[in-house]
Amino acid sequence: MAQNENDDMAIDHGFELEQHHVNHEQQQPQKGTRLSSKEDEASVEKVFKHLLVPTWQNQLTLRAFVVSFFLSVLFSFIVMKLNLTTGIIPSLNVSAGLLGFFFVKTWTKFLEKSDMLKKPFTRQENTVIQTCVVASSGIAFSGGFGSYLFGMSEHVAKQSSDTSDFKNPKLGWIIAFLFVVSFLGLFSVVPLRKIMVIDFKLTYPSGTATAHLINSFHTPQGAKLAKKQVKLLGKFFSLSFLWGFFQWFYTASDGCGFQAFPSLGLKAFDNRFYFDFSALYIGVGMICPYIINISVLLGGILSWGVMWPLIKTREGHWYKVNLGDGNLQGIQGYRIFIAIAMILGDGLYNFVKVLTHTLLGLFNQIRNKQRADALPVANPDSSSISELSYNDQRRKQFFLKDQIPIWFAVGGYVAIASISTATLPHIFPQLKWYYILVIYLIAPTLAFCNAYGNGLTDWSLASTYGKLAIFTIGAWAGASQGGVLASLAACGVMMNIVSTASDLMQDFKTGYLTLASPRSMFVSQIIGTAMGCVISPCVFWIFYKAFPDLGTPKSRYPAPNAIVFRNMAILGVQGFGSLPNNCLLLCYIFFGAAIVINLIKDLVGKVGRFIPLPMAMAIPFYLGPYFAIDMCVGSLILFVWEKVNKAKADAFAPAVASGLICGDGIWTLPASMLALFGVKPPICMKFLSRATNSRVDTFLGN
Amino acid sequence: MAQNENDDMAIDHGFELEQHHVNHEQQQPQKGTRLSSKEDEASVEKVFKHLLVPTWQNQLTLRAFVVSFFLSVLFSFIVMKLNLTTGIIPSLNVSAGLLGFFFVKTWTKFLEKSDMLKKPFTRQENTVIQTCVVASSGIAFSGGFGSYLFGMSEHVAKQSSDTSDFKNPKLGWIIAFLFVVSFLGLFSVVPLRKIMVIDFKLTYPSGTATAHLINSFHTPQGAKLAKKQVKLLGKFFSLSFLWGFFQWFYTASDGCGFQAFPSLGLKAFDNRFYFDFSALYIGVGMICPYIINISVLLGGILSWGVMWPLIKTREGHWYKVNLGDGNLQGIQGYRIFIAIAMILGDGLYNFVKVLTHTLLGLFNQIRNKQRADALPVANPDSSSISELSYNDQRRKQFFLKDQIPIWFAVGGYVAIASISTATLPHIFPQLKWYYILVIYLIAPTLAFCNAYGNGLTDWSLASTYGKLAIFTIGAWAGASQGGVLASLAACGVMMNIVSTASDLMQDFKTGYLTLASPRSMFVSQIIGTAMGCVISPCVFWIFYKAFPDLGTPKSRYPAPNAIVFRNMAILGVQGFGSLPNNCLLLCYIFFGAAIVINLIKDLVGKVGRFIPLPMAMAIPFYLGPYFAIDMCVGSLILFVWEKVNKAKADAFAPAVASGLICGDGIWTLPASMLALFGVKPPICMKFLSRATNSRVDTFLGN
Repeated sequence: MAQNENDDMAIDHGFELEQHHVNHEQQQPQKGTRLSSKEDEASVEKVFKHLLVPTWQNQLTLRAFVVSFFLSVLFSFIVMKLNLTTGIIPSLNVSAGLLGFFFVKTWTKFLEKSDMLKKPFTRQENTVIQTCVVASSGIAFSGGFGSYLFGMSEHVAKQSSDTSDFKNPKLGWIIAFLFVVSFLGLFSVVPLRKIMVIDFKLTYPSGTATAHLINSFHTPQGAKLAKKQVKLLGKFFSLSFLWGFFQWFYTASDGCGFQAFPSLGLKAFDNRFYFDFSALYIGVGMICPYIINISVLLGGILSWGVMWPLIKTREGHWYKVNLGDGNLQGIQGYRIFIAIAMILGDGLYNFVKVLTHTLLGLFNQIRNKQRADALPVANPDSSSISELSYNDQRRKQFFLKDQIPIWFAVGGYVAIASISTATLPHIFPQLKWYYILVIYLIAPTLAFCNAYGNGLTDWSLASTYGKLAIFTIGAWAGASQGGVLASLAACGVMMNIVSTASDLMQDFKTGYLTLASPRSMFVSQIIGTAMGCVISPCVFWIFYKAFPDLGTPKSRYPAPNAIVFRNMAILGVQGFGSLPNNCLLLCYIFFGAAIVINLIKDLVGKVGRFIPLPMAMAIPFYLGPYFAIDMCVGSLILFVWEKVNKAKADAFAPAVASGLICGDGIWTLPASMLALFGVKPPICMKFLSRATNSRVDTFLGN
Repeated sequence: MAQNENDDMAIDHGFELEQHHVNHEQQQPQKGTRLSSKEDEASVEKVFKHLLVPTWQNQLTLRAFVVSFFLSVLFSFIVMKLNLTTGIIPSLNVSAGLLGFFFVKTWTKFLEKSDMLKKPFTRQENTVIQTCVVASSGIAFSGGFGSYLFGMSEHVAKQSSDTSDFKNPKLGWIIAFLFVVSFLGLFSVVPLRKIMVIDFKLTYPSGTATAHLINSFHTPQGAKLAKKQVKLLGKFFSLSFLWGFFQWFYTASDGCGFQAFPSLGLKAFDNRFYFDFSALYIGVGMICPYIINISVLLGGILSWGVMWPLIKTREGHWYKVNLGDGNLQGIQGYRIFIAIAMILGDGLYNFVKVLTHTLLGLFNQIRNKQRADALPVANPDSSSISELSYNDQRRKQFFLKDQIPIWFAVGGYVAIASISTATLPHIFPQLKWYYILVIYLIAPTLAFCNAYGNGLTDWSLASTYGKLAIFTIGAWAGASQGGVLASLAACGVMMNIVSTASDLMQDFKTGYLTLASPRSMFVSQIIGTAMGCVISPCVFWIFYKAFPDLGTPKSRYPAPNAIVFRNMAILGVQGFGSLPNNCLLLCYIFFGAAIVINLIKDLVGKVGRFIPLPMAMAIPFYLGPYFAIDMCVGSLILFVWEKVNKAKADAFAPAVASGLICGDGIWTLPASMLALFGVKPPICMKFLSRATNSRVDTFLGN
């Protein structure tokens, strides 16, 4: 699942970084099961030469969508859990690829044995599954269940400084909302696919990686490796699931269980420095590049280790005493607003950077194109060289075979936009129809920008565009007209469009490289999106009903971005009035620091990859560094493994990490079911200081 | 360290079993680093032909004793911890061998590099170290710190039905006692070494295994393997040590920490079914043969899973209500006396069995000898064939080179016996001089029997002889003259003699197979014993002072055998009067069952190794099955490892197990130091039921 959106806390930074340095250092083998060397890649279509490519209708099999459905549910759970715990969402590409391959392969093997197999399992079908799952579980992210959408709820509103306006989640309006906003992105960029993929030859690192993964699965050698990887994935899946199950027994109430284990001591625990034994985040740490994990840890140390303790000493001077830990006028305000400042600083820098890249890239493309048109023969520029290669010939042929008419795309966009403009004000009365109209007029341009930037840098700025919408619509609407809700809803509209647009283009690239038809990609994306519009709200609903403390700080599901997004909206509407003393100054400093750090990172060249990422540093500002410790444990495991056996680690670490993530992620399904049915864990594993313990022992009469 | 004594809870059963089935099934490779096949063994002395064998004085180097000293301290800690927790002591041969080899090898490497090496490290020196460590840490077992000696203390007396007579441990008298009783065994069997080792060609499986281990270390290939093993041992040593350290932080008081982790649920925990995360017992489980671990688990299920809950339902009928869990008139009586009955039944059976073997073997030996003398030429029986082999020739030559005169042995025995007879009544006024004299008159015969039986079956019956002494002296002394203490002291005297005697003979066999001189073996044993007589009491003293709850049921150091031995002594003196209702009947049943099970085990042949061992089953009767679960986890790890890679598991499992055992064992040194200096752990990890937890939360005002 290519989680290409610039997820709120911007983990795609990491993947961008990672893929970049793979490009920089060609000697390093690429991760996972991708066909690793240029030579392999060069001959890949020759390997598959003898295989017939099915027609686009035949690429869309029922079994593919059945498998996609189950994987979508699985990944929606995982993404939802990640959304609601920290908001860090790593690329689950490899796991989705492996699992999809595994399920269909098992199914076809079974049919083959009973002589009932009609269609063999092709690369194209595999791409269809991958696309569908990506689209579907992408909604779990862009639906904003951990950010703008949940930020509208009463529960989160109570923790913000503006409690006047809220809209509690209800299954009905969420599904309706998602259906009217999620398809626009697809129609807005569909006509541009040839320009982006063939003419501009954009790299789309994630889409390319996914294609290589799928291609490799379908070579005999790759299939063998994939089998081993799936086996390992299964093992760690079970371990991680059982570990989640085991942990459950000891969490009779809040502050119980392994989540409350003061593994670094009680003092450190009070400042949220502890290892919380989460298989999920160990897996995430193994997938995320080292610099992300280090950045998160550094951010945690800077904030919870240094800044908050220092600011707390100013209690009574900078802010009133006895406000409590969760009050926005007190220490909590510093935590949230400094985090927001840093996120916005990083976001702004990267927005400008990617936009510049986009414009420069576009400008160069067009100039080259014109030159190429002017000198049609013997121009040795890269595009004409590669046009000669067998791979490209064949890929181009299949990519251009099935067309999607422009009238269909434009018609679709206009139709859906009209329905959407008519419907949305009924869901959010605060969101006037003219706001929506303006968004839909600008959106195709932004969608194109995001899809193009994503193709160049692998960096989706979806949530940055979302924040842009928050501030512009918020300022336009103003506080009196329920601007907070209007801006959050506008954020959702914007995010969904730009995010699905870049997803679709990634998938077109994947399809191009696996000879899957653009039509089947488009249909698969449509079906996947429709699935996601139903699955994600349902999954969220289970969490929402099972865990009533959803969105409470220090609970198991603090949903940090919900509070961050709501406070951004409030900032956009009301300005900086409500911040505690010196908080605005600190915000300016961190806003500036985020830009400066990014600037240095880009200027110093290669050394830049050792400089931490401001966006990643900001995540623990609000949450605390506990999950950073889990992630660093993951990094450490990977590091040691790479030292011991680099080849094995490269081949199998993504599978192990996926197993850990999926196992723990899917455990939340039974866990929430148990919670829904009122089954409570029997035991509390409690951690008490020696003094408290002797009081308790006396109380219990031991 | 060849813990050859039939440790109270009789773990050597296991080793006996193990070595036997290695003999039965020759195809199975032998464990660890021993030279595995017969061919290797056949040519072993040719491999070492070019190496000069040092004189016996040169075998006794200072560095050997320095290393021995440190290893003795290490192993005394480990044995003491095992004594005081469950009384299960596995063979630590491989770890002692590996560590001894490692230390001297490192030392000589270091000297070699600085050109200061005068003597190379030889097999003989290695054997001297092994012998010294075995002798020294053997005292930690035969000194009875977990059994008869601690059974004399006031603390244990209070838990028994006879509190009138006790003698609290004091460093002074313990050292004096050990010095006067521990050397007799050596002198009593020294003249018999040629008969046992050369004429009778007794196998001494443990001694032989140790010799093979040492021989293999000194081949280039073996040294390489040993290096790898040491590395792995070191890794797991550190892990296990750090794990112990980590656990410490969470044990602020009783009922805190991982030892109180209800890993199988609260209900199971109440019946002592839980995994207590002890690296020590996981290691022990990996070393002990499967059948031992299964037996212990079965015993635990039978007793704590079935019998005790059933007997508890008879509360008020069979025994008075509200006596509490620790009262001997109540449920505790059933636990202890049924365990004793089973141990005695098993002991009696094996005593008779080994004695029969011994007498039959002796009879055959003598008859063969006579026949061989009568037909001096061309008698194709095994002994004359092997006399032709190069190995045997060379070994015999070196074994007979250095003699120990008989007058020295007899003189030594008489001298020490006189001193001992004169001294012991001053230490224990209850132990009259004539009891001692009688013991010393019979002891050489029993020592011979034990050494011979041990040579035949690898089965040391030291603690069975000790129990014999308890009952005979107890009955003789009677209750009025302080019979309980007298019989416990007599047990100590007897155990020390027979145990050191069989140890020495094992060492002679090892020496024979490694060309070490009997003199150096004897001296090394003497020095080791002397070390042990000082080290073991000191180590015990640290435990005794650091953990005031030593010997309390359910504490970290319940010292189960102390209570069992004291109650045996009381039984011997007072008879069965004080047992609760139906307890005697149950005791008879289990006594009989132990004999019948053993009988079946021996009669059914090969299948017998799947029948559990009654002695092992009896251990958890008193303690509960928690450590059985640890041990079974160890078994499971080994089992899976063997399935995955049999060769690797065979080569490295003993090293991993040793690392786990040594790391956790040595952690008790800093742990007891911390306790001695009053440093208490800061945190309590507590496990509460949901109901209790909400009461506690209310109390704490959360």
